[in-house]
Amino acid sequence: MSNAAPVSRRRAIALAGVGVAGVAGVAGGAGALIQGAADHASANPGAAAGAVPFHGAHQAGITTPAQDRLHFVAFDVITKDRARLVAMLQEWTAAAARMTAGHDAGVFGAVGGVPEAPPDDTGEALGLPPSQLTLTVGFGPTLFRDAQGRDRFGIADRRPPALADLPHFAGDALRPELSGGDICVQACANDPQVAVHAIRNLARIGMGVVSVRWSQLGFGRTSSTSREQATPRNLFGFKDGTANLKAEDADLLRDQLWAQPGDGPDWMTGGSYLVTRKIRMQIETWDRSSLAEQEQIVGRAKGSGAPLGRRQEFDEPDFAAPDADGQPVIPETAHVRLAHPSRNNGAHLLRRGYNFVDGSDGLGRLDAGLFFIAYQRDPRRQFVPIQTQLSRHDAMNEYLRHVSSALFACPPGVRDAGDHWGRALFG
Amino acid sequence: MSNAAPVSRRRAIALAGVGVAGVAGVAGGAGALIQGAADHASANPGAAAGAVPFHGAHQAGITTPAQDRLHFVAFDVITKDRARLVAMLQEWTAAAARMTAGHDAGVFGAVGGVPEAPPDDTGEALGLPPSQLTLTVGFGPTLFRDAQGRDRFGIADRRPPALADLPHFAGDALRPELSGGDICVQACANDPQVAVHAIRNLARIGMGVVSVRWSQLGFGRTSSTSREQATPRNLFGFKDGTANLKAEDADLLRDQLWAQPGDGPDWMTGGSYLVTRKIRMQIETWDRSSLAEQEQIVGRAKGSGAPLGRRQEFDEPDFAAPDADGQPVIPETAHVRLAHPSRNNGAHLLRRGYNFVDGSDGLGRLDAGLFFIAYQRDPRRQFVPIQTQLSRHDAMNEYLRHVSSALFACPPGVRDAGDHWGRALFG
Repeated sequence: MSNAAPVSRRRAIALAGVGVAGVAGVAGGAGALIQGAADHASANPGAAAGAVPFHGAHQAGITTPAQDRLHFVAFDVITKDRARLVAMLQEWTAAAARMTAGHDAGVFGAVGGVPEAPPDDTGEALGLPPSQLTLTVGFGPTLFRDAQGRDRFGIADRRPPALADLPHFAGDALRPELSGGDICVQACANDPQVAVHAIRNLARIGMGVVSVRWSQLGFGRTSSTSREQATPRNLFGFKDGTANLKAEDADLLRDQLWAQPGDGPDWMTGGSYLVTRKIRMQIETWDRSSLAEQEQIVGRAKGSGAPLGRRQEFDEPDFAAPDADGQPVIPETAHVRLAHPSRNNGAHLLRRGYNFVDGSDGLGRLDAGLFFIAYQRDPRRQFVPIQTQLSRHDAMNEYLRHVSSALFACPPGVRDAGDHWGRALFG
Repeated sequence: MSNAAPVSRRRAIALAGVGVAGVAGVAGGAGALIQGAADHASANPGAAAGAVPFHGAHQAGITTPAQDRLHFVAFDVITKDRARLVAMLQEWTAAAARMTAGHDAGVFGAVGGVPEAPPDDTGEALGLPPSQLTLTVGFGPTLFRDAQGRDRFGIADRRPPALADLPHFAGDALRPELSGGDICVQACANDPQVAVHAIRNLARIGMGVVSVRWSQLGFGRTSSTSREQATPRNLFGFKDGTANLKAEDADLLRDQLWAQPGDGPDWMTGGSYLVTRKIRMQIETWDRSSLAEQEQIVGRAKGSGAPLGRRQEFDEPDFAAPDADGQPVIPETAHVRLAHPSRNNGAHLLRRGYNFVDGSDGLGRLDAGLFFIAYQRDPRRQFVPIQTQLSRHDAMNEYLRHVSSALFACPPGVRDAGDHWGRALFG
């Protein structure tokens, strides 16, 4: 494997194509190709088109500055054969290392191999740069024991205590077919075609071993995971993730994000726990509410993102400040208050959710909202208490419906070419 | 209206925010904002972030070089009041002119107006550049007469003969709730958040007059509409749209794209007819087929996109060339042969479709495919005969299912600030 190659194989093939056309002197065709290459380059310049290292102490795609696009998939494992499952995880790891570096999924390339066999890459990302693709794997509770309590693959005793089933929260309207899953893969990239290509090729490689349970496309990251990124806006039109845990917060990452030695089984040390929630927003109702009401619900100004009563987005909220009537400027039921670490025993989350629009709902409304993604050291002390409080008191609930929920243990990073996804878990 | 302003209002607000933070000396916050702005600028530099003129002889979004992202919506008109419908179209036009120039949908801006009223912009595109947003409107057959044959708005006699209901095609598996519609709006942009924002605000403005019937997000344009663009790949992994009608083909655009004087009612002269088809691809089955079979089905090489038997993508296919066994190199059932103008009385289409992934289908498969969009002068002589032939003979049909179909008459462009969508139709 040569992930460090400065020009990706995919790109090299595309450039070679231009060269051939040019030599052949097909003026129109060559011109179009060359212009097109430039066109693509300018749409994805520099860092946004580059590669994120795959190997490391932690998995990429967690503290990596949040890319613009998401394709998330949850798989059911449909084999009972542990060896086949492990072999697939090995094959996936090799493909993931190749694809995140901008190469094809398979060793022959999109159009390589023999004509009589299916191609070992599906081809739709041919010529596209790596686009900061990251692939992050996680293992769900049902991989350890099925609904009947059976130890499916001999790893039931390795289930981390922190991977405890989430409780029911007030107002949950979960659809089982969109929830849970044995294995998840989060693909983030700055080009959706690259993210979709990666998931699709993993599904192709996993044929007969795993089956797609549910999948979700997202656009427009709704959080920053680095101070180098501007705070984006969610579909309520508000800045989201101002107070998010960020890559630069070294002490908080240790205390709040990464599983530490002694937290649970060794195979998870350096990993993180992932909660996903698909949250449908009632945007038509929201759009009929007044600006003042929206700001009272969120607890921030819509334009600047500043906490109510303060001036700047990154000012600390003053939860004690009264208004002219002696009421708190930031209402007791405001989202920013209820979610704040000071109200949750100091609990933080590293969020990297995405907006979604899944067409319409058959009732004249857009099926839109937030695909919430949060990483943390222990959901029992972070997501669960925070969501318990929000689900009971958050004024925003009137406009939200949680339709999907899932929980995964994301192991530490793949160390090198000899390591693979699940090696410590199954080893 | 000042669409020609070099810096958009949205952008001006965002930049103002940076300035204020900088002056206030909130080092962390200001740094984050400034970095963020640069981050956004580099992800959407130059032309890709700029504005496409809204006013003109033809609507933008047809020959405009295909942007990277789509949000398409079909509305049902739910009022019986013609005056309300026309008033909404006027309001839509003003909002479309503003949004395509990178401004907010409403005159007060995202956070303007009075606190007691809902904001006149939903806010999620605040700070984002125009991103080459185009908004293209079309009118469906049911706007002229409903299913019971009633003249709903006194325009039944203005229905163009070319807006004839599409016939049933072999293999159609259309879902009525995803098909048809009284009015469509195609939003294309290089940022999905900008496209979604535009559709969402038009739906908000139209509340009580129209209701969302269906909507579709797309990524990864599957055709080029200009020789300046590289040919992209669809989810079969093949280059798509090599032989597409392009903006530079002036004579063909006149003959094949734009309704000409005498073609039908005057209000459509300079307009074009739009056919959309949501085509689900059986990608898991496709991925198990051999490279040779895939290339025989398409009639092109997967890598280069060259017609079988030729060298370069833009080489003309040689449909007469035999292989070593005396059979045609390009099979009789190959897609490229059946769709070629030479097999369809010279008929061309201007396609600007998009790839889609709508999650999964509950059967372990990705719900993915092509949202086909084609503009033309007269579907009776273009899309209908081509699709009739394809639906009967195309070897690709084994891997396709058409689940949605719609037809719209897209009028000529809005001439100036005194003109509006539907003015000639309802005038």
